[in-house]
Amino acid sequence: MKRLASLIFTILIVLPLYTQVRGNIDIPDLNGFVTLKCDFHIHTVFSDGLVWPSVRVDEAYREGLDAISITDHIEYRPYKNDVAGSFNRSYEIAKESAVSKGIIVIPGSEITRNMPPGHSNALFLNDADKLDKPDYQDAFRAAGEQNAFIFWNHPCWDAQQPNEVKWFDEHSKLHQEGLLHGIEVVNGVHYCREAHKWAIEKNLTLIGSSDVHAPMQSSHFFKKDGHRSMTLVFARTKTAEGIQEALTQRRTAIYYRDNIIGDEIILKELFEKAVEITMKKEGQRVRITFTNNSQLFFHLKKTDFDDNLTYFRDFIIEPHGKHTTTVKMKDGINSGEIKFSVENFLVEPDKGMKYSVKIE
Amino acid sequence: MKRLASLIFTILIVLPLYTQVRGNIDIPDLNGFVTLKCDFHIHTVFSDGLVWPSVRVDEAYREGLDAISITDHIEYRPYKNDVAGSFNRSYEIAKESAVSKGIIVIPGSEITRNMPPGHSNALFLNDADKLDKPDYQDAFRAAGEQNAFIFWNHPCWDAQQPNEVKWFDEHSKLHQEGLLHGIEVVNGVHYCREAHKWAIEKNLTLIGSSDVHAPMQSSHFFKKDGHRSMTLVFARTKTAEGIQEALTQRRTAIYYRDNIIGDEIILKELFEKAVEITMKKEGQRVRITFTNNSQLFFHLKKTDFDDNLTYFRDFIIEPHGKHTTTVKMKDGINSGEIKFSVENFLVEPDKGMKYSVKIE
Amino acid sequence: MKRLASLIFTILIVLPLYTQVRGNIDIPDLNGFVTLKCDFHIHTVFSDGLVWPSVRVDEAYREGLDAISITDHIEYRPYKNDVAGSFNRSYEIAKESAVSKGIIVIPGSEITRNMPPGHSNALFLNDADKLDKPDYQDAFRAAGEQNAFIFWNHPCWDAQQPNEVKWFDEHSKLHQEGLLHGIEVVNGVHYCREAHKWAIEKNLTLIGSSDVHAPMQSSHFFKKDGHRSMTLVFARTKTAEGIQEALTQRRTAIYYRDNIIGDEIILKELFEKAVEITMKKEGQRVRITFTNNSQLFFHLKKTDFDDNLTYFRDFIIEPHGKHTTTVKMKDGINSGEIKFSVENFLVEPDKGMKYSVKIE
Amino acid sequence: MKRLASLIFTILIVLPLYTQVRGNIDIPDLNGFVTLKCDFHIHTVFSDGLVWPSVRVDEAYREGLDAISITDHIEYRPYKNDVAGSFNRSYEIAKESAVSKGIIVIPGSEITRNMPPGHSNALFLNDADKLDKPDYQDAFRAAGEQNAFIFWNHPCWDAQQPNEVKWFDEHSKLHQEGLLHGIEVVNGVHYCREAHKWAIEKNLTLIGSSDVHAPMQSSHFFKKDGHRSMTLVFARTKTAEGIQEALTQRRTAIYYRDNIIGDEIILKELFEKAVEITMKKEGQRVRITFTNNSQLFFHLKKTDFDDNLTYFRDFIIEPHGKHTTTVKMKDGINSGEIKFSVENFLVEPDKGMKYSVKIE
Repeated sequence: MKRLASLIFTILIVLPLYTQVRGNIDIPDLNGFVTLKCDFHIHTVFSDGLVWPSVRVDEAYREGLDAISITDHIEYRPYKNDVAGSFNRSYEIAKESAVSKGIIVIPGSEITRNMPPGHSNALFLNDADKLDKPDYQDAFRAAGEQNAFIFWNHPCWDAQQPNEVKWFDEHSKLHQEGLLHGIEVVNGVHYCREAHKWAIEKNLTLIGSSDVHAPMQSSHFFKKDGHRSMTLVFARTKTAEGIQEALTQRRTAIYYRDNIIGDEIILKELFEKAVEITMKKEGQRVRITFTNNSQLFFHLKKTDFDDNLTYFRDFIIEPHGKHTTTVKMKDGINSGEIKFSVENFLVEPDKGMKYSVKIE
Repeated sequence: MKRLASLIFTILIVLPLYTQVRGNIDIPDLNGFVTLKCDFHIHTVFSDGLVWPSVRVDEAYREGLDAISITDHIEYRPYKNDVAGSFNRSYEIAKESAVSKGIIVIPGSEITRNMPPGHSNALFLNDADKLDKPDYQDAFRAAGEQNAFIFWNHPCWDAQQPNEVKWFDEHSKLHQEGLLHGIEVVNGVHYCREAHKWAIEKNLTLIGSSDVHAPMQSSHFFKKDGHRSMTLVFARTKTAEGIQEALTQRRTAIYYRDNIIGDEIILKELFEKAVEITMKKEGQRVRITFTNNSQLFFHLKKTDFDDNLTYFRDFIIEPHGKHTTTVKMKDGINSGEIKFSVENFLVEPDKGMKYSVKIE
Repeated sequence: MKRLASLIFTILIVLPLYTQVRGNIDIPDLNGFVTLKCDFHIHTVFSDGLVWPSVRVDEAYREGLDAISITDHIEYRPYKNDVAGSFNRSYEIAKESAVSKGIIVIPGSEITRNMPPGHSNALFLNDADKLDKPDYQDAFRAAGEQNAFIFWNHPCWDAQQPNEVKWFDEHSKLHQEGLLHGIEVVNGVHYCREAHKWAIEKNLTLIGSSDVHAPMQSSHFFKKDGHRSMTLVFARTKTAEGIQEALTQRRTAIYYRDNIIGDEIILKELFEKAVEITMKKEGQRVRITFTNNSQLFFHLKKTDFDDNLTYFRDFIIEPHGKHTTTVKMKDGINSGEIKFSVENFLVEPDKGMKYSVKIE
Repeated sequence: MKRLASLIFTILIVLPLYTQVRGNIDIPDLNGFVTLKCDFHIHTVFSDGLVWPSVRVDEAYREGLDAISITDHIEYRPYKNDVAGSFNRSYEIAKESAVSKGIIVIPGSEITRNMPPGHSNALFLNDADKLDKPDYQDAFRAAGEQNAFIFWNHPCWDAQQPNEVKWFDEHSKLHQEGLLHGIEVVNGVHYCREAHKWAIEKNLTLIGSSDVHAPMQSSHFFKKDGHRSMTLVFARTKTAEGIQEALTQRRTAIYYRDNIIGDEIILKELFEKAVEITMKKEGQRVRITFTNNSQLFFHLKKTDFDDNLTYFRDFIIEPHGKHTTTVKMKDGINSGEIKFSVENFLVEPDKGMKYSVKIE
């Protein structure tokens, strides 16, 4: 009895030892939409991950994420002799630890099968335990009955697609049944160009995620890039419902290393919100200043060669940087248009977003 | 003729290559005063420094400083066979490069003499060339005639005070003549406790500075601490005049590694502006949350042992961190006061600022 | 059946995803002893830690540690409804994952009691389950019967010693019974001066440890200092047996932030192995160069003021740095001794190691 | 007289304030050749750079470079009213400061002209002043008469080639006259694919350099990549003569961000020296371990799809990392060859170095 009392005392005192420092990911909102930074593919010790679920909330808080989903494997739990229980358990623990931190935790699970159809994440589940079925189609249907948002994970994964990256009939069938809504174009540090192509062709929601198993900060690339791979969700509200609506409407982009992957209309607005462009004319020269109010890089590359206007070939606007360049107009020329692509804003595989600025 | 034209073209194009990224030093303002982050002791190739004056402006911009003074030595110019000219020249170059960046550059010089009186900086000069006199007293008086603000540099410097740190009659005399207004308590990574003591005794303005000669970022401690040693100036306006008035009125503090050195009244207000304290009572326990809205550390240490209240011995609130701790009241006790010092807010040598929080 | 096969395939392929990068802690060996970098106080999800035991091995590998002990609490397992099993389990998992990495894992447990006697770690256990006893004395005796090395953890911990740091009769009794061999002078970022004093008075082995619960890299101080708090063990062999012999013989020191805490004889040898001192005489001047072949800092401070020799007041030799200083001898003086303390090599609370260098 | 004495004293004492920490670039040597890390394109205040020449030596020392050349512009000295003198002066100052640090300083100058022929660096000059001629051909010939090694700088520079990257007749003529030996394929963070192509076609020595003007550490990319752009010179001896012989014989490669650019034979040997490959057969599986003993990245990508062998699609071996992957052989198959390219070892524009490993 005395021991119990002492332990309760211990808990209350021990907790404050961890100072929490909230991070921030500086990417602007769009008109009418808040830009939520989300990671929908995360593991814990409840499948083959290496951390307790609350660590995933701490990481999200520290890194400046708005929402996460713990998506432990249904069919693969290597530590089950040590860590047992319902498939909902890692969500419950994460959810509870998130209350005081304002992180949105979305219930989810990874349906983990041979190829086809490979691995898929189902989000917004009411009861993950219902996905534990011998036949994968039953698992997908159980998710569908809960109105889950489902996406195919890492279609390029060499362990399942060693020699060729294929879209199988099974995927077509799931898609037709309304059981496949998105596709993971970026998984960890891997970009899958086939997935990017299919997302555009088949109107699938673009997803980028970390698929983190170890503590986030142990990744060399995390340190190098300053952030994990994530999905930017352009939501009407900063809520789970807002995220679900945005995912269903395909209002997402992917933030991957120094790149943004997404639809041209969204990327153009994101560029305009992040970068302020001002001009100052001095005779036949115009000085253009790009002021970057975000943490994003912008790799600009000239796309049009016009003898009337002489300007940069390419340059990089650094995070929160201000970059000034000079455009020289030929004698007798008083206006024109500088045309460039933002090479790291990918609207298709290998195709940067095009942009132009009027000079006058 | 043709070559000249091409070179002008070159200059216009070359300049934009340096992307400028503005930094920020997160330290709050005080009531009625803006907190300016200033470094009043800096060298360039115009004396024995190793960079061009514009680099000092770039560094200030990148680090988030508001004002600098280039204080090249009058009497010591080791590169004078290569770099010649007026003692005002490094100021002029820095000043011009600062226009577009919003950095305040204050004209200054270092009067560089044997001990006594050692080295001193004179700020707000109209013409530094007038300080080039054989007798040090004439140099000080020439500065005084320009209404300069003068402070004694690195009184603890081992090269000039190898065995004992002394205040000489010559300093008393300058002080009495109104030619010594401040004292450098922190020079680079060196804190001088004697200077701290004299500043309090003799009502001298507290100055902390980098005395940087090499590029700022080559300092190991700069990287470790995240900032240089600097003077915080609590000014009515963000102008050179505002700084001069504040220096004259001794409204400064020193930001040195993780420490703030200053007057108790100023430090207390700074603490209250930086740290929000909230409480939540649960029976005989009160949970206190310290939310740090600054980049400063706070090292709290209990100063009073009261059996009625059980609380922390010491802890550190990290930059931008939130720290929660529990106070336990004895049965029958419903209020009290927790008392601690902020060990790294030095109001005297070895004496942290005292603070208390009422619990009820 | 088919699913099982696929899952085995999955495991084999998934594992290689984590690239392992071995770290290094650059601290020299002593004559006849290898300097092992050890952390004997670590938690996992098997008590109130937040990571899987193998993460602790990965961290040790990456940071350059030689040996760790997972010391999960016997009496405090807040996740026991999710993570159950023997008290030996976290050791077993860590041990297995350490095989290929050459990290020594020492079995251990934390006996977790009210004060007195508070918390203690027992290392080199054969069976941790035998420590699960209602009476703390029985737990200590069960550890003693296994020839465990036992040390008192965080004697300054405010949760257990809120108003005064006391050595209780219970500690004397354990000590007399041969059940208390060491004391944790450094726990995480906390140094306990009382524990340092007792270690010297009572001949207890000096222990410094991380007491890490979260992933190591999430600590702000870990990033700032570049390493965790640890025990340096000067062992005859790089084996568990070598460590046990060295701990028993009190051949340890503590590496804490920029400090080394230990016995004067050991610290002196460590300094001499780490820093090469060379001299060059030029008339009445001698140039002394300190070449630091370690990652340690050395804060040198003059202790003797001798009018015959003029030299530095204090300076810092940076990690892997080379530092040259000049000693000036008075006319007619041709030899002498420069005397200083290494302020961050603590031989007692507030007392740096003294050292002198002959000049001739 | 007294003042002079005090200043000499000051100099002797001030110098030791800068602790020097030698860096290291971990790239292996080749058989019979030492791999020297060199930067042959650097500016100082003696042209349009922003630092004193000795800073360039300090940077080289700290970063782990073996050799540098200060290549201030002949025709462009914007600070000439403040910094005057011979074109050899920046070399002389750097050379003197390099003596105690073991950095090789090679005399050089940048011949700075309109396009064609644009800017070129001439190394191993005896007297840079002789290059100050109105006609560029006379400048090149003056360099040629001193047996200089000459390379064309930044052929892709948008300021001189705004709309198209051209090789002009003037370049052919210089080449035929033996006055053009190398080409800068990488300048700062810019890779020039046309230059890479021409280097291969015309047997020009591959050069990569920083073209640094500001302090090195102020570059965002320097921090991100951990090193500047540089030329790796495979020399018979670590001397200026060794470098000259290797440059003349085109034994160089370029280290640019995470990439190595060079001749296939050299890159293959570099890969083999840096990466140790070991295998362990377990039935139809072979575990291959790649141990990276360098600071280089290796981006491996499968190039051959063979149904008999199932293995990775792509992965990255991190600096000093160990990476294990599994190859699965089809039943009945007992040997084969895994084929991949090292994507970041560029042997031509867009073409990674091919490699294969025999499995048996």
